[in-house]
Amino acid sequence: MSNYNRRDFFKATGLAALPALLPAQTLFAGNKNEFQPPPAEPVVKLFGDGEMFDGTGYLEQLQAASAKQLIKADRYGIGGAVEELEKKFAVITGKEKAIYMPTGTLANQLAIAVLSGENTKVFVQDTSHVYRDEADAAQSVFNKRLMPLVKNETYFSAAALKQAIAALDHEEVFKSGIGCVSIENPVRRKDGRMFPLEEIKLISEYCKANKIGLHLDGARLYMASAWSGTSVKEYSSYFDTVYISLYKYLGASGGAVLCGDKAIIDKMPHLIKIHGGNQFGNWLNAAMALHRLEGMEERLQQSIARFKEIMNALNQLPGLNITAYEGGTNIYSMQLPPAIIPRKFADTLQDKYFIRMPVPDDKGNCKISVNETLLYRDPNFVIHAFKDSIKTALT
Amino acid sequence: MSNYNRRDFFKATGLAALPALLPAQTLFAGNKNEFQPPPAEPVVKLFGDGEMFDGTGYLEQLQAASAKQLIKADRYGIGGAVEELEKKFAVITGKEKAIYMPTGTLANQLAIAVLSGENTKVFVQDTSHVYRDEADAAQSVFNKRLMPLVKNETYFSAAALKQAIAALDHEEVFKSGIGCVSIENPVRRKDGRMFPLEEIKLISEYCKANKIGLHLDGARLYMASAWSGTSVKEYSSYFDTVYISLYKYLGASGGAVLCGDKAIIDKMPHLIKIHGGNQFGNWLNAAMALHRLEGMEERLQQSIARFKEIMNALNQLPGLNITAYEGGTNIYSMQLPPAIIPRKFADTLQDKYFIRMPVPDDKGNCKISVNETLLYRDPNFVIHAFKDSIKTALT
Amino acid sequence: MSNYNRRDFFKATGLAALPALLPAQTLFAGNKNEFQPPPAEPVVKLFGDGEMFDGTGYLEQLQAASAKQLIKADRYGIGGAVEELEKKFAVITGKEKAIYMPTGTLANQLAIAVLSGENTKVFVQDTSHVYRDEADAAQSVFNKRLMPLVKNETYFSAAALKQAIAALDHEEVFKSGIGCVSIENPVRRKDGRMFPLEEIKLISEYCKANKIGLHLDGARLYMASAWSGTSVKEYSSYFDTVYISLYKYLGASGGAVLCGDKAIIDKMPHLIKIHGGNQFGNWLNAAMALHRLEGMEERLQQSIARFKEIMNALNQLPGLNITAYEGGTNIYSMQLPPAIIPRKFADTLQDKYFIRMPVPDDKGNCKISVNETLLYRDPNFVIHAFKDSIKTALT
Amino acid sequence: MSNYNRRDFFKATGLAALPALLPAQTLFAGNKNEFQPPPAEPVVKLFGDGEMFDGTGYLEQLQAASAKQLIKADRYGIGGAVEELEKKFAVITGKEKAIYMPTGTLANQLAIAVLSGENTKVFVQDTSHVYRDEADAAQSVFNKRLMPLVKNETYFSAAALKQAIAALDHEEVFKSGIGCVSIENPVRRKDGRMFPLEEIKLISEYCKANKIGLHLDGARLYMASAWSGTSVKEYSSYFDTVYISLYKYLGASGGAVLCGDKAIIDKMPHLIKIHGGNQFGNWLNAAMALHRLEGMEERLQQSIARFKEIMNALNQLPGLNITAYEGGTNIYSMQLPPAIIPRKFADTLQDKYFIRMPVPDDKGNCKISVNETLLYRDPNFVIHAFKDSIKTALT
Repeated sequence: MSNYNRRDFFKATGLAALPALLPAQTLFAGNKNEFQPPPAEPVVKLFGDGEMFDGTGYLEQLQAASAKQLIKADRYGIGGAVEELEKKFAVITGKEKAIYMPTGTLANQLAIAVLSGENTKVFVQDTSHVYRDEADAAQSVFNKRLMPLVKNETYFSAAALKQAIAALDHEEVFKSGIGCVSIENPVRRKDGRMFPLEEIKLISEYCKANKIGLHLDGARLYMASAWSGTSVKEYSSYFDTVYISLYKYLGASGGAVLCGDKAIIDKMPHLIKIHGGNQFGNWLNAAMALHRLEGMEERLQQSIARFKEIMNALNQLPGLNITAYEGGTNIYSMQLPPAIIPRKFADTLQDKYFIRMPVPDDKGNCKISVNETLLYRDPNFVIHAFKDSIKTALT
Repeated sequence: MSNYNRRDFFKATGLAALPALLPAQTLFAGNKNEFQPPPAEPVVKLFGDGEMFDGTGYLEQLQAASAKQLIKADRYGIGGAVEELEKKFAVITGKEKAIYMPTGTLANQLAIAVLSGENTKVFVQDTSHVYRDEADAAQSVFNKRLMPLVKNETYFSAAALKQAIAALDHEEVFKSGIGCVSIENPVRRKDGRMFPLEEIKLISEYCKANKIGLHLDGARLYMASAWSGTSVKEYSSYFDTVYISLYKYLGASGGAVLCGDKAIIDKMPHLIKIHGGNQFGNWLNAAMALHRLEGMEERLQQSIARFKEIMNALNQLPGLNITAYEGGTNIYSMQLPPAIIPRKFADTLQDKYFIRMPVPDDKGNCKISVNETLLYRDPNFVIHAFKDSIKTALT
Repeated sequence: MSNYNRRDFFKATGLAALPALLPAQTLFAGNKNEFQPPPAEPVVKLFGDGEMFDGTGYLEQLQAASAKQLIKADRYGIGGAVEELEKKFAVITGKEKAIYMPTGTLANQLAIAVLSGENTKVFVQDTSHVYRDEADAAQSVFNKRLMPLVKNETYFSAAALKQAIAALDHEEVFKSGIGCVSIENPVRRKDGRMFPLEEIKLISEYCKANKIGLHLDGARLYMASAWSGTSVKEYSSYFDTVYISLYKYLGASGGAVLCGDKAIIDKMPHLIKIHGGNQFGNWLNAAMALHRLEGMEERLQQSIARFKEIMNALNQLPGLNITAYEGGTNIYSMQLPPAIIPRKFADTLQDKYFIRMPVPDDKGNCKISVNETLLYRDPNFVIHAFKDSIKTALT
Repeated sequence: MSNYNRRDFFKATGLAALPALLPAQTLFAGNKNEFQPPPAEPVVKLFGDGEMFDGTGYLEQLQAASAKQLIKADRYGIGGAVEELEKKFAVITGKEKAIYMPTGTLANQLAIAVLSGENTKVFVQDTSHVYRDEADAAQSVFNKRLMPLVKNETYFSAAALKQAIAALDHEEVFKSGIGCVSIENPVRRKDGRMFPLEEIKLISEYCKANKIGLHLDGARLYMASAWSGTSVKEYSSYFDTVYISLYKYLGASGGAVLCGDKAIIDKMPHLIKIHGGNQFGNWLNAAMALHRLEGMEERLQQSIARFKEIMNALNQLPGLNITAYEGGTNIYSMQLPPAIIPRKFADTLQDKYFIRMPVPDDKGNCKISVNETLLYRDPNFVIHAFKDSIKTALT
């Protein structure tokens, strides 16, 4: 843990973003690292973007996948489940080709590097993963200068981008060339808020007209798609390259796919190799993602519907208030009733109902996430659990 | 397959080395890509360094592992099976610390980079993986100049190293600094031959005396250890850093460990991150390697004993000749009797006895490998299978 | 001219900064590219930081230098005038060692790279040469991420630096390390304004306490010293490395010196070599700088005194107003009387009195610079020239 | 001197190559670092490729140049003598464009980098400057892997190149791409021997057919041209880029030109800038080179003719033997008569006749170079000087 600071990270990103990055157990109600629900009881998780399987659960899923269709191993990304996954994502994104990547960081960095070619400057959101969470890989390994736009905001407008590019003419004398533009959508550091579609369209137009490459860090693109109603394919159509994560909601233990034109993707195997990312077998992740992908969009829609039902019911309770973020996706702000002890509430929810949520602060504020685990229970079960836990936690 | 040439690779490396790199099925007797043994029949593989599990087999192994001990997931290499694996390998190699690496290439490159610091020149075997099989990562990403010693040979002597370093004084005017020395043992491109222990000791002494870092590419170090009788710990003691593969004989679908002083290993997480190798979960590979590691040295010794019995019996047959390589490990040269059709022999062995071997050439020569799969059958079964297949293949 | 934009650069930087970057002739009154003063007439230049000799003038200076002391050639920076220059600047800056550098860009980049070591982040002024005028060399060649502080301002406070470093703890999860801090003083893009000494002291203290390297881009450090009264040695004492230009006011056709601890400077020859900057002979620049350095500080003080006399006299004239910048050095703002045609005034000054100044804008505003060329004429000559030119230019 | 070893360098390269690299004075007869000929006496130098002017001599040459044509300064390589030089060399080499480079190392490295693009492997002579004397810049800064061909030889044949490229197919599995081929001609480390024209033609054909870039390190190309009779333009026609030194025989204190297609040369200003090589004024070197270039080819032919006359006469002397190298240029092997004390001979030659030569070894062997300084004296003067010095040095 020496090279990052867990405490400040929690403060900075909001607990809701956490499961993607750190062991979830330590952060949740009860602080019970060894929380073990009864074997038969499913656990609803009001954090994270999807189910993240561990040991036994993972193996069960793989077996289920294997029962549907024999899983085949790849060798260095060639053949087997990896090839199948790549073909599937090429179709999903409407791109010529897709390739498995060991990490989102490598997917982002290589896409940006190839789109930029010899040019140095890359425009990004100030709050983006590429800018804040890739340890300055762009500058220290990939020879790019990231140009953050609009401090602390979810997105930049097409106008802001144009103005920043125009300003270079007088802000700098020696030109180093516009490499590309990279957009993260939705934005993890902004509680899952989305980059507005209208601005994406304008930026895409501008980039095409000016032959500037455009990359989408769509790690959680399915969240944007589920909440906005814009398809993954439509989103992808505005970009030259699109990266989608395999582990945030597709259940794999890691990995990513990068999609784009054949000419771009064909450069990747060599680049992956020289950066040390060419693993022998990636089929365990690919097979899991393929398995979980099936029906995922439907399950997400059901989860949303179910959550709305729950939210409506809970918002009737005095003092309890769940609100969506403007332009948000699956993360919601929740204010607990003032008359209760927040921690006691969360503990009860977990220990009695196996519903886990981020630890609320002393004033009863927290951020909760909507994901497939909501489908494990009937909405009434969840509503009842909340009501009962509130009662238990009354001061 | 665009960025490497499968055909020439086969010629260059010998078929025996192949399974580590390419889909094995296409290379073996019968050219039956879809070779499917009857479910109940185990398959003895006279190629590769160990069992390489695919789909169902892999899941079964994981379940077996899970039955022994609950498998725990890591998050970005922290905790769970990954941490357990790292601790285990630190003990095995006698080093202060170990770290999981996504690939051997990254393990080699980062070890070399850190050991070399600001210095540029790195001495390697001409036949080593670092020099020939990492796509010039050292020069194009890690800013190092590899200095190959002794063209086409398995190893260089301490004397050759000293002479090469001394020669720089007159061969070059502007010094770029001696970075480190990297040794591969055993050497895949030399049919698994070993780097002689005596030379390793001399080189280690020289390097220590001259403060030159020394790295061991011990991808297949357990093979060297099993055939030489020198323990992994003793081998490791001569080096500053040691990399061991998790997939060549430990069953994992990929991954590696790098062991060394804490001061060196502690630099790795940042370097792994900026090169895009920091995967979310690596526990599937770690758990498998931990599981398979148990008893592996004993199983290897049994395999060796069993193979000797088989070899002795087979070498009694007229025209059949199996010989070990000088300084070799688990790869052997086999000459089939002249009176048979080599391909027919190999096909019979596979189709009737589920013993698979590399395709022999027209003159009946091939290289076979010894590994744990020999333990699937009684030696007499194998001996009989050979005899019967020879009879079947008589011209 | 393809890779920078001359027009916008003029607008951005102010004409006064220009002669350091581009052929001055095109920018000055009369737009006479081929302005040729009568041979006997010295030319006072109200732009630039010092005399910039060309063809004949340069040779005359070299001959004068040669008459004082035989000029000796260096070979690859070893021996001769280069060695003498390096020793002199080590004494001037109070540092252990100095080294000739072909450009200020290389001096800045290599100082920053060596001070930063393996760490990535480098804090700089947003308006600094390193950040804006080195074509992103830091990011694209030297693997550093520049962190600009305080948009569009001359300097950042020690408090701002500390806050920015502290903020990283929550703004970023994966640490990439604080490399060093680089300060430009005075700042070319801010009309020669100075970085306040008090802040330098505080930053120096903070950096020492936290083992963060501190570099001074003192290209025009003699200007800061002359206007602030703080010696070059005192300024240098607050920094680990100091770069001073040889051509901006020392007459050389190019080149720079970098001063610092022996341990740092001793790393430079190799780094200069591998970046292609190790020229065969640099003595022509070194000899010129040594020659011009003699008495330069006195000449600058005389120039300042003389300019104050002139300024006082001219500021008595109705409508003419020359003002110093807050915290400024040798650049002054000049407002011409409203009743005259600005261009006609400047043309007269040049053609009749051989006093050249930047082209004023339509409203009679411009920036003029004080330098040694003021010493070519008696103040009364200059005052009279202004008065007469105003009369001539009356509408 | 810390980063190279002067003594071993002498041994390695032969003294004749030396003046190009180190202060000549220390290496020559008498070991008189402060050898000062009487002012009126010209010094014939039997080392080096041309006159290398220092202090006074340099200024005299610049004045002579200035007398012919007013020297104009450039600003950052734009305009003035630099522009004139670039235009002249474009014509001389028959290329679209030429650009001033601060060093041959930068010229070589950037030409190779641009010709290679994303590909990694660059084929070079084992004895070339690029491979041995650029401090591994290619690998540590420019991300290229140099592939030396034919150990210790002057050149490689087209057949050897083709074979090496073909061999990669089986020697390596993961392709890193053929970047370009670089040829040095003549070869400094091989006593000025030439790369055979016939092989250059074949290699050029092969490279064109296979779209592999071809670079000429023609630092001393005028030597190859003078001795082979092949024009600089013809040599250049076989290559995509050509670098020629400005200081080895053109009198400048440093600098180089790189010539090639406009598309290639237009990439250089940015690359020069980010590597820190964009000096303010380069006109002092450009003007000198332009001045000395005039008539240089004729002077070289006269020097050759004169040297042949001298050589013929001297080879009549008993025991003295001057021989040309096979395929050589301006460096010759000289064996002094056995009956003399070699050092005494050389001292006399210098002190009495102002003819300087490299220090012969104890057996009277040395390498002497032919250059323009031979024209300072009548051949009979030189012949007499040798005879008299031999007499003086008799044991």
